[in-house]
Amino acid sequence: MAKAKTANNPLMDAIVGLCKRRGFIFQSSEIYGGYNGFFDFGPLGVELKKNIKDAWWRDMVHRRDDIEGLDSSIIMSPKIWVASGHVGGFSDPMVDCKASKMRYRADQLFYSPVVVDGNTIGYVSTLEDGDMEATAQAAAEKMKRKQGVQGELAPVALKEYTEADPSEYELIPSPATGEPGSLTAPRDFNLMFETKVGALSDSTATAYLRPETAQGIFSNYKNIVDTGRVKIPFGIAQIGKAFRNEITPRNFIFRSREFEQMEMEYFISPEADWKACHREWIDWCKNWLVSIGIPEEMLGEDVHPQEKLSHYSRGTTDITFQFPFGEQELWGVACRGDFDLTQHQEHSGKSMEIFDETTKSKYIPHVVEPALGVDRVLLAVLTAAYCEDEIDGEKRSLMKFHPRVAPYKVAVLPLLKNKPELVERARSLYDRLQRRYNVFWDASGAIGRRYRRMDEIGTPWCVTVDFDTVEKDGTVTLRDRDTTEQKRISEDELLAFLDEQL
Amino acid sequence: MAKAKTANNPLMDAIVGLCKRRGFIFQSSEIYGGYNGFFDFGPLGVELKKNIKDAWWRDMVHRRDDIEGLDSSIIMSPKIWVASGHVGGFSDPMVDCKASKMRYRADQLFYSPVVVDGNTIGYVSTLEDGDMEATAQAAAEKMKRKQGVQGELAPVALKEYTEADPSEYELIPSPATGEPGSLTAPRDFNLMFETKVGALSDSTATAYLRPETAQGIFSNYKNIVDTGRVKIPFGIAQIGKAFRNEITPRNFIFRSREFEQMEMEYFISPEADWKACHREWIDWCKNWLVSIGIPEEMLGEDVHPQEKLSHYSRGTTDITFQFPFGEQELWGVACRGDFDLTQHQEHSGKSMEIFDETTKSKYIPHVVEPALGVDRVLLAVLTAAYCEDEIDGEKRSLMKFHPRVAPYKVAVLPLLKNKPELVERARSLYDRLQRRYNVFWDASGAIGRRYRRMDEIGTPWCVTVDFDTVEKDGTVTLRDRDTTEQKRISEDELLAFLDEQL
Repeated sequence: MAKAKTANNPLMDAIVGLCKRRGFIFQSSEIYGGYNGFFDFGPLGVELKKNIKDAWWRDMVHRRDDIEGLDSSIIMSPKIWVASGHVGGFSDPMVDCKASKMRYRADQLFYSPVVVDGNTIGYVSTLEDGDMEATAQAAAEKMKRKQGVQGELAPVALKEYTEADPSEYELIPSPATGEPGSLTAPRDFNLMFETKVGALSDSTATAYLRPETAQGIFSNYKNIVDTGRVKIPFGIAQIGKAFRNEITPRNFIFRSREFEQMEMEYFISPEADWKACHREWIDWCKNWLVSIGIPEEMLGEDVHPQEKLSHYSRGTTDITFQFPFGEQELWGVACRGDFDLTQHQEHSGKSMEIFDETTKSKYIPHVVEPALGVDRVLLAVLTAAYCEDEIDGEKRSLMKFHPRVAPYKVAVLPLLKNKPELVERARSLYDRLQRRYNVFWDASGAIGRRYRRMDEIGTPWCVTVDFDTVEKDGTVTLRDRDTTEQKRISEDELLAFLDEQL
Repeated sequence: MAKAKTANNPLMDAIVGLCKRRGFIFQSSEIYGGYNGFFDFGPLGVELKKNIKDAWWRDMVHRRDDIEGLDSSIIMSPKIWVASGHVGGFSDPMVDCKASKMRYRADQLFYSPVVVDGNTIGYVSTLEDGDMEATAQAAAEKMKRKQGVQGELAPVALKEYTEADPSEYELIPSPATGEPGSLTAPRDFNLMFETKVGALSDSTATAYLRPETAQGIFSNYKNIVDTGRVKIPFGIAQIGKAFRNEITPRNFIFRSREFEQMEMEYFISPEADWKACHREWIDWCKNWLVSIGIPEEMLGEDVHPQEKLSHYSRGTTDITFQFPFGEQELWGVACRGDFDLTQHQEHSGKSMEIFDETTKSKYIPHVVEPALGVDRVLLAVLTAAYCEDEIDGEKRSLMKFHPRVAPYKVAVLPLLKNKPELVERARSLYDRLQRRYNVFWDASGAIGRRYRRMDEIGTPWCVTVDFDTVEKDGTVTLRDRDTTEQKRISEDELLAFLDEQL
């Protein structure tokens, strides 16, 4: 997978700008200077997000007989996170700069010895970045000049700080000060947010904000097996918030500290062909992304190599997407085996076995897990939809949202604001459409400007009520966002058209 | 408002039992012995909850021109909670028992002197409870007997521990030990859950889980005014999780530590008739509750007396509901004046004034706030829907959910499982209906038992495909949940019927 591009990125800037300008996404707590890693969804963002979640829920839960829904709490018994391994091991390696009090992810801090004619004259360091090779090389050249050393400077060879030899820690300069001697050894930093539940404030009260929704599914698996009518193979799906105390949240809503997940755990027999099941789910996920308007050619697959798999995984494939900052993970599909249920069986003392009616045998099922971040797929939708073109010599930016996810499905516009007969007729059409769809009403401004406004927030169709509507044949103008083509149709034809499209 | 009944409550037990048995609501982390104050929503609960939230969003946001939606983060800048007054004052009075290490809400701990012939011979204490007078009286009699005191015992006169004179603290027995001398003075305990954000763990990293969604609205008000097209009066609505570290979570999902709110802040001119606006919103809320199936006669109004209003409120009316444990607050409608926006203007240094096009004046708007707990309205829906009757001499428990909120709208049942022609025909009807509604498929078991199953989870209609369907006229049996009446209709009539009802 390509390295992330973090340098200047005009497309990313355009998307972030439009999101703020049109009320899709705001930085959290903006009036107080913002709060790093947290975002708020404005009037349009909340609709877009809800449409994406509703589409997933409909396709994943309602339209499938074999999948049940769930909504578990964000704060759960801390014993769950002990069993799942998160208390012990859900951590990133961190390094402190004792001089500046800054802290860095050790796997995002890179260093290289500066070698002249085979002799190491010092070290340079840099934070992970698309241009970090060049930055480090320039720093090395500067060091050579400054020290007045003659000879041939070798190209820098960057390594992660995690790979440094302990003897090198005090030689590597801090990115904050540029001086060596202040960086500590890397140490593990747990990414779970901690809190205290109940009136006591001792360690027995410690609890965690869930870093994933999956464990809420595993810990309710037994309840659902006992109360439902599920038969192997079956799935449990959940949408909900999760939290990770990321040290370096970045790339807008791609990596934030509070985010939302749509996860599904699909329970299969240990004897089942898990590779085939894995493939089926990868295909299902890709088809679903296409169904909400993400072009297939922007998707890829990243198969995790065997030696890099998590300890619980037999195989993981990430569906990737071409974000403005590079091709990155969008949807992880992991084969978790029976790791989680076995852990919970051991820690809770409750049997996680299920009786398989078909094979008349009892076993702990294995799991295939497609795990998608709502914010990531939302950013993918924004990225895929954003485009600029020129209409009648005027630059236009528009959001080509699929009608399934567009915040507003249609806008109703009376041609002139000060003609009551137009406004009334338009209003009655608006009321009629609003019973079925989320409809936008806009009566003020030149009609061309109103069209542009709808283009920019991705409303697929505009309907204009003009004098022909009230004086002649009752037809309205239907304008298409992408082609800007207009045609006259009757109100009944309009309803039938929308019904078919949505 | 009536005191809560916390004694044995068969109706409450029946509802909690059905919720667990049929997969509506589970105690969180049940396999680990549960986690007090947290709940998980199972396959049926998640649908019921989603339907309630979707109905509110449609009516509050989509169907009103004057209201915008929002989805702000759960963790926000801690400065917001300083400005709102929550860091300083969002607390309950607590009392510790130094002997047992137990902690109690001081306003839920009651005490009385034990007075015989005018002399105080000791104190009794009890936790708040429907029977606490009787409990305390019995304890007083026991004390008199034990001490061998003669004379006339006065009736106990219970007071909250918060009202005790400091000299009484050491005389009042701890509810844990029954002995005096171990209770502390009451002290304030902040109900916000704290956590640390970022890598540092000093006090600059302290953040809070929001105890209400309202402040997310106030802190985004300026962004929405700047990016939207809002004109006074207008509202901003939000649905989302909130957290309060309640010391005594109780009454099932009525008072839990993690819950969900549906709040709307309606911004009006300071010159507007706020009392009329308040009344309009109270009526809107009551009508909405009726529209999702809550009988008007189970609702009441509790007007907060002037002297008991929060410092920011000019007037608050709670819409109450007759819960199984008594008449309690369901939906608070508060007139908050300009308290919140003024606080944020002062703390952030950003102007919260809006320019009113109509009056050509600038001001900080005032606010009317209807604030509803999703879990509370869900419990009200469960309570209103639960009933028991007798059908053909057999007891039946059913959930009379309004079709708008019922988890499944209709069930499709082939009369016999082992007749492929019935199953196929039923399946094709199921597929057809599933495109529009959440539909249940049930092929196994006696038809009467399948009907009962649907009654218990509140599915309004069952459709049975039998031999007449496939061999004769293509009609199916439509059974009504509440009346159990059945009639034969064609598939097209069925679709038209459901379309009209839903």
